[in-house]
Amino acid sequence: MVTDRERAAFEAGIKLGALYHQWVGAPVSPATAETLERAIERSVALQPAVEKVKVSLDRTLMSPNAFGYSELAGLMFDVELVTRLGRARCTATLSRSEDYPLMSLVSCDETPADPHH
Amino acid sequence: MVTDRERAAFEAGIKLGALYHQWVGAPVSPATAETLERAIERSVALQPAVEKVKVSLDRTLMSPNAFGYSELAGLMFDVELVTRLGRARCTATLSRSEDYPLMSLVSCDETPADPHH
Amino acid sequence: MVTDRERAAFEAGIKLGALYHQWVGAPVSPATAETLERAIERSVALQPAVEKVKVSLDRTLMSPNAFGYSELAGLMFDVELVTRLGRARCTATLSRSEDYPLMSLVSCDETPADPHH
Amino acid sequence: MVTDRERAAFEAGIKLGALYHQWVGAPVSPATAETLERAIERSVALQPAVEKVKVSLDRTLMSPNAFGYSELAGLMFDVELVTRLGRARCTATLSRSEDYPLMSLVSCDETPADPHH
Repeated sequence: MVTDRERAAFEAGIKLGALYHQWVGAPVSPATAETLERAIERSVALQPAVEKVKVSLDRTLMSPNAFGYSELAGLMFDVELVTRLGRARCTATLSRSEDYPLMSLVSCDETPADPHH
Repeated sequence: MVTDRERAAFEAGIKLGALYHQWVGAPVSPATAETLERAIERSVALQPAVEKVKVSLDRTLMSPNAFGYSELAGLMFDVELVTRLGRARCTATLSRSEDYPLMSLVSCDETPADPHH
Repeated sequence: MVTDRERAAFEAGIKLGALYHQWVGAPVSPATAETLERAIERSVALQPAVEKVKVSLDRTLMSPNAFGYSELAGLMFDVELVTRLGRARCTATLSRSEDYPLMSLVSCDETPADPHH
Repeated sequence: MVTDRERAAFEAGIKLGALYHQWVGAPVSPATAETLERAIERSVALQPAVEKVKVSLDRTLMSPNAFGYSELAGLMFDVELVTRLGRARCTATLSRSEDYPLMSLVSCDETPADPHH
């Protein structure tokens, strides 16, 4: 009833939804952004079906508040994620689309079975 | 490159990942569980592609700490979610599987196009 | 080394810091704001030392994104909280101060001991 | 109506409540714990009134689930925090007390004003 490509797409959605709501709101500044990027990547990479994850946070949006720091906002995320399930693989992104932090399923494909087997 | 069923599966994953990491950790007790269930459902239902969402929190796991309340834990969730994209529809669940709060893609299907059009 | 007034102030800080980071990012709209306000209040009221909590979310800041909803942002909060520890009581608020969601300790006082005892 | 010691205690509470609810639920393992500790410390240190923060996560509680990782739980935290406001300073901790992640205000003191001024 469900293909491996659909499962890989589902897993990609879980990871993007989870990382967004886990990390949004964390205090951040340009000086601490890289530490946070690595912490998010390493945390996401622990989860099942993740083949690759790359997180970049837009420092230009980190305008300091009255106390000199910002909070991690959805629009700051630029994430590329690859999930794999069996022979299926999906690529998904979280990135700014005008004023919305858009999660997109970019592509799904499947490695062909070996014809000799 | 991506089918509507895959997109609907991706959207289902986003919603389950998001709700889990948004709400886990919230103070809860059997007396407040229903208010929290409705707040989660109404919040999830605002998001794109959600056709139906049902949230039940397992009160038997809400054993009071020294101060008489619990925190919402992953294992307490029993969620059923239906997403729809175009003619494709997916059903997904978040529910306890032994000691793990498992997110599952249960089914995806597609309404056939009307043959008369 | 620590007075009851200081402990009551500490408890007030815990509750405001916790509620902010627990709930920020949740999908919300003017139609669901009241359900969310009640869920937050009931959740906070479970925690130790809370005597009173009132949460109002600013609907005028809930401008719909491309998909017709908003996310709970720090600036939307208007919270009044009273904590009590022994005979000490503190009032604290979370409310918008220009472009910053400010947490303030408004007052602390102590009921005098009964002179007859 | 409020002393600097009370304000420093309030600020300490805010930081502990915030860090708890911001980070609980994040996927973690013994191999990624140190990265997460540093990310939390750097994030907390950005906030006002923080003089010192030290975060240790208890690896012995990170028992792997069916997929080989854990989630950051309240009981894993061992945090020591010092806040300062004017001449007042408070020390607070978040650490395990039996089965409860307890936040404690350990001490508050005030540097005497310089008698020559």
